[in-house]
Amino acid sequence: MNYEAIWRDVEHIRSTAPLIHNITNYVVMNSTANALLAIGASPVMAHAIEEVEEMASMAGALVLNIGTLSAAWIEAMVKAAGAARKRSIPIVFDPVGVGATRFRTETAGRLLKEAEPVIIRGNASEIRALASTGEGTKGVDSTHTSDQALEGARSLSERCRCVVVVSGATDLIVAGDSLACVHNGHPMMPRVTGLGCTATALVGAFAAVNPSARDAAAHAMAVMGIAGEMAAERAAGPGSFQMHFLDALYLMQEADIQRHLRAEEQ
Amino acid sequence: MNYEAIWRDVEHIRSTAPLIHNITNYVVMNSTANALLAIGASPVMAHAIEEVEEMASMAGALVLNIGTLSAAWIEAMVKAAGAARKRSIPIVFDPVGVGATRFRTETAGRLLKEAEPVIIRGNASEIRALASTGEGTKGVDSTHTSDQALEGARSLSERCRCVVVVSGATDLIVAGDSLACVHNGHPMMPRVTGLGCTATALVGAFAAVNPSARDAAAHAMAVMGIAGEMAAERAAGPGSFQMHFLDALYLMQEADIQRHLRAEEQ
Amino acid sequence: MNYEAIWRDVEHIRSTAPLIHNITNYVVMNSTANALLAIGASPVMAHAIEEVEEMASMAGALVLNIGTLSAAWIEAMVKAAGAARKRSIPIVFDPVGVGATRFRTETAGRLLKEAEPVIIRGNASEIRALASTGEGTKGVDSTHTSDQALEGARSLSERCRCVVVVSGATDLIVAGDSLACVHNGHPMMPRVTGLGCTATALVGAFAAVNPSARDAAAHAMAVMGIAGEMAAERAAGPGSFQMHFLDALYLMQEADIQRHLRAEEQ
Repeated sequence: MNYEAIWRDVEHIRSTAPLIHNITNYVVMNSTANALLAIGASPVMAHAIEEVEEMASMAGALVLNIGTLSAAWIEAMVKAAGAARKRSIPIVFDPVGVGATRFRTETAGRLLKEAEPVIIRGNASEIRALASTGEGTKGVDSTHTSDQALEGARSLSERCRCVVVVSGATDLIVAGDSLACVHNGHPMMPRVTGLGCTATALVGAFAAVNPSARDAAAHAMAVMGIAGEMAAERAAGPGSFQMHFLDALYLMQEADIQRHLRAEEQ
Repeated sequence: MNYEAIWRDVEHIRSTAPLIHNITNYVVMNSTANALLAIGASPVMAHAIEEVEEMASMAGALVLNIGTLSAAWIEAMVKAAGAARKRSIPIVFDPVGVGATRFRTETAGRLLKEAEPVIIRGNASEIRALASTGEGTKGVDSTHTSDQALEGARSLSERCRCVVVVSGATDLIVAGDSLACVHNGHPMMPRVTGLGCTATALVGAFAAVNPSARDAAAHAMAVMGIAGEMAAERAAGPGSFQMHFLDALYLMQEADIQRHLRAEEQ
Repeated sequence: MNYEAIWRDVEHIRSTAPLIHNITNYVVMNSTANALLAIGASPVMAHAIEEVEEMASMAGALVLNIGTLSAAWIEAMVKAAGAARKRSIPIVFDPVGVGATRFRTETAGRLLKEAEPVIIRGNASEIRALASTGEGTKGVDSTHTSDQALEGARSLSERCRCVVVVSGATDLIVAGDSLACVHNGHPMMPRVTGLGCTATALVGAFAAVNPSARDAAAHAMAVMGIAGEMAAERAAGPGSFQMHFLDALYLMQEADIQRHLRAEEQ
């Protein structure tokens, strides 16, 4: 992974402002939209069954997130995904809290099959739960290490033929046999709600401009982590961190990526 | 448009804290409520069909916004509008994304007829789409200039006998033949999600204290733009901009309006 | 009330990160989650009827808030409360806007009976309306003083055998005959949306670690007020206040509590 390729994607997003259609949870709608705007994309949130197909058809990527799911929204997600697939629009899936309740586990399993995402992003607990149903998670926070989740990510990637991102202190980007690791980020990030969901939305923005799902996912996670490090240099706590994080996405230049990037591929 | 009249409205809002009933989208509920509180109004968000009539009846203005619409919410909007009209409570309408999907276009058309707003605020794409159904918009962002939208705004204003606000680098406030232009604002504003929706809500707050819908709309747009300029003086990016924008609404004095106001009437 | 006991609760929350299950309103979901994360708790928002029982069963506390209520959410609240009671998980109730509409008053009355909260937090208007149905409130803001609400709080506390918190310039924590008063806080707090809801959520976090509902409520209100004072030292307006408030929750040390605490018990 080299910084020039990441920067090319950032410039591509900023110059084309791809429309990212999000069907996501109530908690993060505002912060997700602001992060997408800050990096240069054009977010839209729409969940009505009457319009999701039309909206998804216009998008550069479709992002599905089950953070505050309910029955009607799941139907809309399936419909939107069908429309996106018809036009080869990349679908990114965030299985928030899968494993915490039976409803979440069943819904995540259904979306895995019916939405056919090209990229899945979750924390270690979620990816393990999604890979092998029957394991529990504690709420929406991660209780497994990234390393423990690697096995699950590999089997999930092979079974669903998609890229799997396990976010954590080290982010793992798994595509079949290949593995990329991003070491960027900051311990304050889990203290701001929805930064995992923001990562998923940014993956969508990068997938809208980079035809390689694997590269898009890796580049997005690197930009997340680097923005987090830039924010941490100025933040006193999670409140100011959140503000500086958006500023960092907006201000990030090639030199910032070059200076901060800590990643390797295997 | 003179700064003293704008300041009188601001003082009126701060001293009477009018209740503004918002039926708005999930993305902006928090930021809209905070902007209304910052300028001195008293926001309430309520969408349940069981209570919208009662709530709207108590309000100084009713603000309808279809940003994340769904069927049940539309019914509530129509009911709330009926209750507001009975008591001559001003109704402000934000047709977010009209033209992007058939559902939005039909819904906006229905609300135009059944809600009978006294003020409509949208970006150039939305106002053109609302004026002449059949034109497309790209997501919820504007792809037309304000000038191109003037014709649409005029015809919409005449057809619906209401004030039409086209927000953009220059905001146009159209009431039949009359036109006011507000040149205040800052290029960072479209990089913060929901500032258009915030403008609509502020229009509601001004309409609650100023019986002239045209003046209320123009004064609100001027205060939006001036707060944006005040925020931009201190902001590094869209994260800090959003924070300083709320502070500016709260701190704004008559001298700030006098110094910043760039507007004219035709 | 002594600062060491408050600090013990804060340390307990930070070291155990209790899961707080919130069924709350759209406006405050993000800010509530961020406040819970900032103090060290682990928030989850889940409202689907299919999963609320499972989610509530895992939680350290269940927080119910009717700020943007609708019929389906009420059923979910009742179900979640049933599951929480079975496991003696404390339930905290925020009757936002009770008295403003018949729907809110009826819903609050129903939840009082069927959810059986151990702690209720509201402003003076809400507590009075809840204690004696038939009184009106203006929107969701308080129009009664804390003192006027004391009588209502006492009768409510006795009737429902629960702790009642009336928040205001002075917070009253009423448990039957006993009364604690917290004088901490800052006039800017009502200018930020949802800080009342944040207080309720923090009460949930403290109830998850302190078996005395009365002490949990009093300690949470003290921490709210102290964080508000710490934020006000650095804030220019409500935008920056909100940011510094989250930082203060995160940074608060025992010495801050010792220096700021102004409270007494009767």
